[in-house]
Parts: sequence; C-alpha cells; structure tokens
Amino acid sequence: MEHPALCVAAMLLTAAALTVAHAAPRRAETRQAPRQSAQEILAASPAADWRALDPENTLVMELATGQVLIELAPRFAPAHVANIRALARGGFWDGLAILRVQDNFVTQWGDPDGEDAAKARPLPAGASARLPAEFSVPIDRIGKSAGFTKLPDVDGWAPRTGFAEGFPVAADPKAGKAWLAHCYGMVGAGRGDAVDSSNGSELYVVIGQAPRGLDLNITVVGRVLKGMELLSALPRGTAAMGFYDKPEQRTGIQRVRLLADVPAEERPALQVLKTDSATWAQLLDARRYRSGWFVHSPGHIEICSASVPTRAAP
Amino acid sequence: MEHPALCVAAMLLTAAALTVAHAAPRRAETRQAPRQSAQEILAASPAADWRALDPENTLVMELATGQVLIELAPRFAPAHVANIRALARGGFWDGLAILRVQDNFVTQWGDPDGEDAAKARPLPAGASARLPAEFSVPIDRIGKSAGFTKLPDVDGWAPRTGFAEGFPVAADPKAGKAWLAHCYGMVGAGRGDAVDSSNGSELYVVIGQAPRGLDLNITVVGRVLKGMELLSALPRGTAAMGFYDKPEQRTGIQRVRLLADVPAEERPALQVLKTDSATWAQLLDARRYRSGWFVHSPGHIEICSASVPTRAAP
Repeated sequence: MEHPALCVAAMLLTAAALTVAHAAPRRAETRQAPRQSAQEILAASPAADWRALDPENTLVMELATGQVLIELAPRFAPAHVANIRALARGGFWDGLAILRVQDNFVTQWGDPDGEDAAKARPLPAGASARLPAEFSVPIDRIGKSAGFTKLPDVDGWAPRTGFAEGFPVAADPKAGKAWLAHCYGMVGAGRGDAVDSSNGSELYVVIGQAPRGLDLNITVVGRVLKGMELLSALPRGTAAMGFYDKPEQRTGIQRVRLLADVPAEERPALQVLKTDSATWAQLLDARRYRSGWFVHSPGHIEICSASVPTRAAP
Repeated sequence: MEHPALCVAAMLLTAAALTVAHAAPRRAETRQAPRQSAQEILAASPAADWRALDPENTLVMELATGQVLIELAPRFAPAHVANIRALARGGFWDGLAILRVQDNFVTQWGDPDGEDAAKARPLPAGASARLPAEFSVPIDRIGKSAGFTKLPDVDGWAPRTGFAEGFPVAADPKAGKAWLAHCYGMVGAGRGDAVDSSNGSELYVVIGQAPRGLDLNITVVGRVLKGMELLSALPRGTAAMGFYDKPEQRTGIQRVRLLADVPAEERPALQVLKTDSATWAQLLDARRYRSGWFVHSPGHIEICSASVPTRAAP
C-alpha cells in the first residue's frame, strides 16, 4: 500500500517544474516555474546569498529543552531593540518564565510577578519602563538600504507586501508607512492599553495562523530563527487566554543573552538567506508555481507562506 | 507596572465599537462595527443560531490526554466520509498512532506499518483502499441548501471565499468549483502521487499558517471541533518532514469511533454555531472592525482568520 504520509509531506518540498497557472482573476499570466526543488535551489545557492548573524541583533534564549535564537529588527523598532539589548545585558529574563501559550495564537514570556509592583523584577540599568510605540516606520526606511523586495501577489491586509532584511514586511505607500507583519515565528512586545506602554520585557511569538489584525497595533521586534518548536509545542495554558493556571506549569527561562555576549567559541554558526537574493526569489517562485505531486498550482503566495531559511555555516 | 500580557491577550477579545475603517485601497468604506465584544455577541446569540452535532458526521478520537472531536464534511467529500465511517466502525485506528508532527504544518496519524504490505493493518469490511479524488465539488453544491455565506474580503488564493455548514470554503465561479480551504484545524486525507490514492485511513490536521497551496490538491474531509490542542502541542518529530524517529516517540490512539456508536449518555453535548447565522456575521464584523485596545482596525478578515465557535449545549 502506498504511504500517503510521505507524499503529503513531499508537497512542501516538491520540485516545481512547468506549471499551468491558476485561473484566478487576479493572476492571468501563465508562467514557467523554476525546474528545481527547494532543496536543489538551496543546494545551488551561492555563498554570497547568505549572511552571518549580527551578534548585536541576536538574542539567545536558553530553556531546559534547548536554545532559541531570535533575530532583532532595529530598522523597524530601534527603541525596543535598544531596550531589549539592555534587558538582556542586565540579565532581566534569567530565571523568569514562559507564562502563556494560547493555541493558534501566541506563546508569551516575561516576569510572572510583573503585575505586582512589590514583587516585580526591577528593570536593569539602562532599560526604560516605557517606550514610544513603534508600530510602523516611514516607508522610506525600507528603501534601497533595506533591500526591500516587493511581492507581486495581492494581500488583503495591506496594499504592499514583501521582505526586508529577512523579515516579512507590509506597507501602505499612500500613508507613507511600513511595518513588520505578524507571521508565524514573529516576535512582538506586549503592551497595555496605552500605545507607549511596552518596553520589550514581555515578549510573545506567533504560533498559529498569522494574526495580521495585530499589525499596526503593537511593536514587532524580530523573528525566531531557530528553536521555534521549543515555543510552539508547549502545553497550552488552561486559564483565560492561555495563561497557565499554576506556577509549576510554566516553562522556566534559564538565561537570555545577546549573541555578542556569548563567548565566540560557543556561538551557533548560523547563516540566514538574504531576502534580496536570487535564491530567495527562486524559492518563492517554487512555492507559487507547483508541479510534481501537485495537480493544481496556486499561482500565489503571501508573506506568511514561507519562512526565510537558515543554515549551519558551511 | 502594567502587565502587557493581559493586554496582548485582550486584543482577540476586545469589544469592537465605532471604528474608522482602514484606508486600504480595496476597502474604502467607513463602517460602524458592532458595539459588542465577541463574548457579548455569543452571550446574546439566540438558541436557533446553534446546531447539535450530527452523530453520523462526527469522529471521536481518544488519546491518553483526552478526546478529539472531528466534524466530517460529506457535502465536500462524500466518498471519503463514507469510507471514514467504515474505518471507524471497523475499529481501524484503534491502537494505531500519531506518526508525524511537522512544525507550522501538520499533525498526521494512521498506521505506522502502512508502507509494509506484510505488516499493514487490513482495511475493515466495507472500506475501500482507493477513492476518487474529492479535491472540489461543483459550485452549485454550496448553494442555498448549504447556507453558503460569502465574505466580501479579498482573498489571494481564490476568487470567492466564505463559509458553509461550519467550514471555510473557497470557490471559483468561472471554473464552477468549490472546495474546503486548508485553515488551522482542518483535516485532510493523505494521498500518494496518484490523485485517487487516498482512502481516509491516514489523516492530517493543519497546525500552523494555513497551507492554502494544498487546496485543490488533496481531499479535505472535516475540521477539529474540540481537542485541537491535543494535536497541535505534541513534540515535533525530528526525522525528515516531522516524522518521529523512534516508535516510542509516537502518541498512541486508543480508539476512534463515530459519535453515533458512542452510547447516548456518554456523548459530548457540543453545539456548533451556524455559519449562516446573524451571530456568525456579527463575530466576523467584530474582527474586521476593531476598537478599544486597537488603534488600527484592519477592515479585513480572511476565511482562516476565525474559527467557528462551539459551546457546551446549554
């Protein structure tokens, strides 16, 4: 008996050869897709299409189960990223916990006593308690220097979408704004009712369908590059909104450091694919135009359809 | 110190009062949103907006951690649903296992020995080994009798989207087709390379960003109504494509029955909101037009943005 399992799996990895485009109203073109699979495209990618991690923009979170790497986005949230650096350097998260896991929404971590002024952990020197909202940036900030690459595909949430510096980005040229999109694996800074009430000490990561309705409502600070499954596969909290009922259900955070503060010989040698590279464009096309196992090619992707690949430095 | 956690959480549940619509190009209208929160809308919903489970169209999967309820979709996959009924009635899945959990993709279950003809569990009497592909149905099947309600929101994957009988549905009027969409929690039937190679014995559920590129490529058979977190929070498999390396890593399936075969007094008394009800339309509007904690209202939703609610029968 054929094993459906392998083949269901294979779809994500299937070579995309010549495909008849989807007869959707907004995409009339017929187009040849790359004749290579995602693995073949990655295997053939030139070294110049990859970049190293920036040690000042990478958080290393240590759980008992392993290491989570988070790339920060100073171009989009400069004040929050500066504060997060100060929090990490001050050991703010060491010994704190993952407090909340809400299915199909977010995993969130910070100070379990954050609401109790008497017990809350003080912020370290150099960290601010409140920051300005960084829900969007002027659109010229995703110009040439950011290597913004626009997707041709329609997006219901924003007039323009694409990628910049490894992040999914949405923009509204008429309003002159650009912002990071809430895709799977994106990390944001929890806030109170006031727009300037976040400081980066309480962070969340998206673990389900992209909650794009949050875009422009909260400051997004980065993306999980590695260890996502350590945050997404945690037991869901059973109290309201996915908070854990009991302290012992929480997952402890052993330590969070900036990669720059990890001894050089202990640093994970990870590389990230450049999103203004030909390799990334080919990978997106391989998802847009499918063949092989696929009998229907969507002729479409969205910014949350694909995560930017990482690899161990060769 | 304010606790960002509660407020990040509150967004999903925030009352949507008067909102200025998003200035997105495709939605110029300004519109008043319902002045009620999702909870208030649900609390005020008339009994007639809810329906009971159909015992012939509901699967009850028992794991050591609890019960998963799956609603089947005979309107969209009649042959697969009939086969799944025969498989359940023949005890096919009893003692089998969850074989694969791939982060941000699917959890999949079936016969671990399915690929080994000598060891594979034989299909029970009345179940077919191969079924015709049921990737779409004629569009007239989502006519009046199905209570199809169209979303006004643009969707990049299909020219028309909406809900029918509790399921997210996409359609292409020009091609005369309608199909179930791969949203979070939707259940499909794994297949091999041949389009008619699925039989419903190997099933998967979406546990991440909606892989809409699978639409029209595989038969979707239903939706998880309850117990989703028992499938989404499992450890990710570390072998290729999220399969488990070792048999002991798998999660055992104790038993799968049709609800009709569960003694009446043991049946979970769950109700599902009707998707052609005013309550469902109000809930969608409360997500489209936000206020309160939100400073930006997206003016948009998509079929995978919201799951159809269930409740314990009052």
